[in-house]
Amino acid sequence: MTLITNRPAQDRYAAGAIAPTLGQFLYDCLKKEGITDVFGIPGDYNFSLLDTLERESGIRFVGGRNELGAGYAADAYGRLRGMSALITTFGVGELSACNAVAGASAESVPLIHIVGTPKSADQKAHKRMHHSLLDGDYGRFRRMYGQLCAYTADLTPENAELEIPAAIRIAKRMRKPVYLSAATDLVDKPIVRHAQPAEQPAMTNPNALQAALAAIRGLLGGADSAVLLADLMTLRFGWRQAARRLAEGWNVPAASLLLGKSGFDESHPNYIGLYGGAFGSEQVRSAVESAGCIVAAGLVWTDLNTANYTSKLDRLRLIDIQPESVRVGEALFESVMADDLLSALSGIGWRSAAVPPSVTFPYDAPFGEPDQPVCAASYYPRFQRMLRERDIVVVETGTFSYGMAQLRLPAGADYIGQQGWQSIGYATGAAFGACMAAPDRRVLLFVGDGSLQLTVQEISSMLANGCRPIVFILNNDGYTIEKYLNVKTSGQAYNQIPSWRYTLLAEAFGGQAFTAQARTNRELDEAISAAEREQAHRLSIIEMIVADPLDAPEYVHKLRSHLTEQERLMNG
Amino acid sequence: MTLITNRPAQDRYAAGAIAPTLGQFLYDCLKKEGITDVFGIPGDYNFSLLDTLERESGIRFVGGRNELGAGYAADAYGRLRGMSALITTFGVGELSACNAVAGASAESVPLIHIVGTPKSADQKAHKRMHHSLLDGDYGRFRRMYGQLCAYTADLTPENAELEIPAAIRIAKRMRKPVYLSAATDLVDKPIVRHAQPAEQPAMTNPNALQAALAAIRGLLGGADSAVLLADLMTLRFGWRQAARRLAEGWNVPAASLLLGKSGFDESHPNYIGLYGGAFGSEQVRSAVESAGCIVAAGLVWTDLNTANYTSKLDRLRLIDIQPESVRVGEALFESVMADDLLSALSGIGWRSAAVPPSVTFPYDAPFGEPDQPVCAASYYPRFQRMLRERDIVVVETGTFSYGMAQLRLPAGADYIGQQGWQSIGYATGAAFGACMAAPDRRVLLFVGDGSLQLTVQEISSMLANGCRPIVFILNNDGYTIEKYLNVKTSGQAYNQIPSWRYTLLAEAFGGQAFTAQARTNRELDEAISAAEREQAHRLSIIEMIVADPLDAPEYVHKLRSHLTEQERLMNG
Repeated sequence: MTLITNRPAQDRYAAGAIAPTLGQFLYDCLKKEGITDVFGIPGDYNFSLLDTLERESGIRFVGGRNELGAGYAADAYGRLRGMSALITTFGVGELSACNAVAGASAESVPLIHIVGTPKSADQKAHKRMHHSLLDGDYGRFRRMYGQLCAYTADLTPENAELEIPAAIRIAKRMRKPVYLSAATDLVDKPIVRHAQPAEQPAMTNPNALQAALAAIRGLLGGADSAVLLADLMTLRFGWRQAARRLAEGWNVPAASLLLGKSGFDESHPNYIGLYGGAFGSEQVRSAVESAGCIVAAGLVWTDLNTANYTSKLDRLRLIDIQPESVRVGEALFESVMADDLLSALSGIGWRSAAVPPSVTFPYDAPFGEPDQPVCAASYYPRFQRMLRERDIVVVETGTFSYGMAQLRLPAGADYIGQQGWQSIGYATGAAFGACMAAPDRRVLLFVGDGSLQLTVQEISSMLANGCRPIVFILNNDGYTIEKYLNVKTSGQAYNQIPSWRYTLLAEAFGGQAFTAQARTNRELDEAISAAEREQAHRLSIIEMIVADPLDAPEYVHKLRSHLTEQERLMNG
Repeated sequence: MTLITNRPAQDRYAAGAIAPTLGQFLYDCLKKEGITDVFGIPGDYNFSLLDTLERESGIRFVGGRNELGAGYAADAYGRLRGMSALITTFGVGELSACNAVAGASAESVPLIHIVGTPKSADQKAHKRMHHSLLDGDYGRFRRMYGQLCAYTADLTPENAELEIPAAIRIAKRMRKPVYLSAATDLVDKPIVRHAQPAEQPAMTNPNALQAALAAIRGLLGGADSAVLLADLMTLRFGWRQAARRLAEGWNVPAASLLLGKSGFDESHPNYIGLYGGAFGSEQVRSAVESAGCIVAAGLVWTDLNTANYTSKLDRLRLIDIQPESVRVGEALFESVMADDLLSALSGIGWRSAAVPPSVTFPYDAPFGEPDQPVCAASYYPRFQRMLRERDIVVVETGTFSYGMAQLRLPAGADYIGQQGWQSIGYATGAAFGACMAAPDRRVLLFVGDGSLQLTVQEISSMLANGCRPIVFILNNDGYTIEKYLNVKTSGQAYNQIPSWRYTLLAEAFGGQAFTAQARTNRELDEAISAAEREQAHRLSIIEMIVADPLDAPEYVHKLRSHLTEQERLMNG
């Protein structure tokens, strides 16, 4: 029999101790990163990984209903905890998770994807095992993941002590997913101990930092105003506090971008709202684009983050802070760590004397009489009103993602969505992951009917794990955002979806939930109140049935007009 | 405005006609292969593909609830129709379908995977568009699919007329999936016409064929008996009739392998059952392994197809017929097309004089009193009894797949399962595809509770498309097959699943279905009778609730014993 040691983790590394097994060492490394829950789906090639996990203390397996859902859950968990882990089986399992891992890559989430593979002897003999393409090639799926991950390694007892920490270091430094595979028979083998190479953390080059600061002083010298933009990397690299200190120290307004939503405390008096180019608030656009100096923390210049490139930032007035570099106007300074730069900037001694811009938030004012049908204009103010400090707001791609991005969040709230990768179905899995990552916080899920249908079974995972999110399902009878995005044809049959009875889902999944349907504002108000009472006890599902399937927030109407105009110009 | 021509397909290729668009040409090529339904999910990058499809006659879009389900549906459609097509969107869509396309690759299904990608100018400018990894690299996902597909091409108006037929030729010849991407702006552009290169079909080398036949005559000369084995390629390359003629002409018994199930007419008097090495019938094993000559049509030597390599075929007595080669004993003859060889073999003049082996089929005899709980021994005979000619039997991986493989099928039945790739969740999507491929035939789905949860939403697709399969859900409270396969530990928490109320699913999905629960044999008999009456009108769901979660067919018990013994030997 294989000797399975059940010694506590701290003893395993004592002088003279029997080395931990590959699996034990792997989980010890994950625990050091604060990971206490590993998402995944079992399969025979990952039994040894899961059996080891079941015996470990301080870390546990959390099953999703399929690999894509488990991967989405891991993505959200990683956003909230700083890192996450996913276990799948070879071939069938790992390939079902591709989309989730790609999303983590696009949106800079350090997710450790662990794959159990066939016995090493069977792989070496090129046997035609199940879950392979039956051609004896066992490198195919790892090569595929090489396109999605910052690092891949096939673990052995000989390399585990080097490869696992290396993969985790890369995942942390680059904020990207990494891929680790292990043959099922090697997981229980003791690792070979190595002298650990000294870690070489990325460090600021003091000369580069001083040169950057000089350039920034030059830029600020000619500026009468400045603005701070918080974007994706502010969230991922934890610059929230630094960004806030900077805005306060300089006395400048701050806006967020779609991908950076919740990166700046939106309850703060300096917060002016979402910067969404031609589709967002004109007040914010004017304040940002006319500022004498624009400090962008972790900007990602994508199509949707720039409102289809209608955002216009003058590069000569831009300080573009990235994790390990900064661009000041046209000058790029490398080896400048953002933490060091942000800290130095707060103390640079510049302070704006400009009058703060006057802004109104689009959903501050209540709208709609009680007996009127629910619509975008009426439900977004209600969502804003119901939000509480430290809520986790999970928002699906679709019309919801544009409206919700304009809500003003309370302090300490986290906003989770895929504004870059934009995979519909993400949010339901992500809500599950958020619940597991922060069991003491309230999770609100905003999902459209079309998207929910892709990953609906993760509602079952939430019910089975005692999660109690409040789930808002927008029933607008189809892929509404797709209808907006297609400006060439109308009434597409392919954008229709089956009409589900959403309030029956929890019962079908064998769970207890509070459910309500809301067609009017009054019904929505009552449903929200009831759900807030129920939230202590059980999951809530509120189905919002809109009268107009094409009802959408203003942002989406502007997006549509822009696309229509572009199409007109292109076809002369 | 772009000129959209709505001319009928036949006019598009007339002399002097305006060339068809890339999209029109693509669908014309698919229609030539008999494809009338294209599975998929909409997304903005495939709007132009779907808009074109909506305007075409004789071919239509069929939406799944997510890409994996749509991919599984396309796989089953391809098995029944000879070829299938799947449309997804760039990144988020295509990556969700990876597992399905990999399954088609492993199990030799020619599936045309079509992906709509961002505008060509945006790709060339390396813009950071949604659904990309936001790094400007637009080749990543195609490179990933290069690991799964026999061919990939990025279509343009200039190359479409060459690349599309080339991809289809390769898919047909190799029976593998291929991957075609098209930038959304190029789909409506007229193709550039080319002189078509003359097709070079694979042809038999007459000398190789004669040499092979001589070797076969030599082998037969010393044999007093022979047996025919039908395996995977018999199904995929359409050798069923040829195999039957050969068995009749030679007067020899025929068996099928797991991957080749339904490749030989099981109602035929020469059929002796499933050859499953040490786990299957001893009578069949003895008949196969002791035959003087073993003719294997399309053999695939995988772990599960050989009952974990307990199948023992003496290579010196084996005629191993592959699509374009044959191995006779140790001699390999290349460029021998199977059709030509099978035809020549039927007329070779040899006829067995051996007494046919005496076999009994494991599920011929009814079993279990009406009030006893349903169990494997009692429900498999009932399933066998209810099957009718031309039924399509779709079976999920799990305990069901081993029991169902030993049923004797009626004439003309098709058996669909993933005995090689073995992705749980496949069968529910596959049943949807089967219903669409053969609307005039009865489809029966046999699925376990654990597997169903992965792809349950394809029940909604079936309801929405008026499909009326009879769905048997085996509720045995978890991943039972995984419990059998893990011989090292027991009571794994990770093999537990939430308890769903399966008979509520159809209603939650907004559909009309007949539902029943069966705990006893009587209840199962009544549910089957009722479902057979209801089948003309609506989908049926029969939930079989077994008393013993570890109840399984004999085949699985033998598999477990084998694994236990192997584990014992390995650990001395």
